[in-house]
Amino acid sequence: MTKSFGVVLVSHVEELALGLYKLVKEGAADTSVTYTGGTDDGGVGSSFDKIMKAVNDNEADNIYAFYDLGSAKMTLEMVSEMSDKNIEIMDCAFIEGAYTAGALIQSDNKKEVIDEQLKPLIIK
Amino acid sequence: MTKSFGVVLVSHVEELALGLYKLVKEGAADTSVTYTGGTDDGGVGSSFDKIMKAVNDNEADNIYAFYDLGSAKMTLEMVSEMSDKNIEIMDCAFIEGAYTAGALIQSDNKKEVIDEQLKPLIIK
Repeated sequence: MTKSFGVVLVSHVEELALGLYKLVKEGAADTSVTYTGGTDDGGVGSSFDKIMKAVNDNEADNIYAFYDLGSAKMTLEMVSEMSDKNIEIMDCAFIEGAYTAGALIQSDNKKEVIDEQLKPLIIK
Repeated sequence: MTKSFGVVLVSHVEELALGLYKLVKEGAADTSVTYTGGTDDGGVGSSFDKIMKAVNDNEADNIYAFYDLGSAKMTLEMVSEMSDKNIEIMDCAFIEGAYTAGALIQSDNKKEVIDEQLKPLIIK
């Protein structure tokens, strides 16, 4: 594991999650970023099992988790309760928050700095 | 054309644009939503020609345009200057702003209402 924190991306849509992963990795090459989108059968929605897998697959134990819409947050909260990892669910702008977090983790910023920079991106 | 306003999505990443299109359409079935992502050769970045095509392909003449990161905005601004359409570039959270705009256009809200609802989502 290269960094203390990881980023998990949870979208309602498979392609959105993959696309955001690519964007975040542009600024966070050595940071563990995992993602999931859609339901178990690939529809629009969220899946407990897929989110849990994204959390487990992440190399970090301290996770910044970002989501697109409210119902993905509810599933994330359930995962968060069941997981042994420390998951912080961020009510930030999905794209901008995840990109910012990835870049700040990549450049080895402290948690306080990361949280401070994410604060203006809280919109939900 | 069923609605007075359309939504244009501009991302740095092809899959992100497609995924967001799918999400926005969930709440905006009869609203014209067009999208583009990445450079002309499919890399991460933005393309004047692809953005211009997304604007032209949109059925509406009044466009709410959303983007992910700053350099996509710069390309959007160039397109906006060259286009005959009325393009409003929104400095909103990309996902949340586009989804909200789509849903509000879909339910035939007036421009003032749409703008008012998008205001709290301005983060850049």
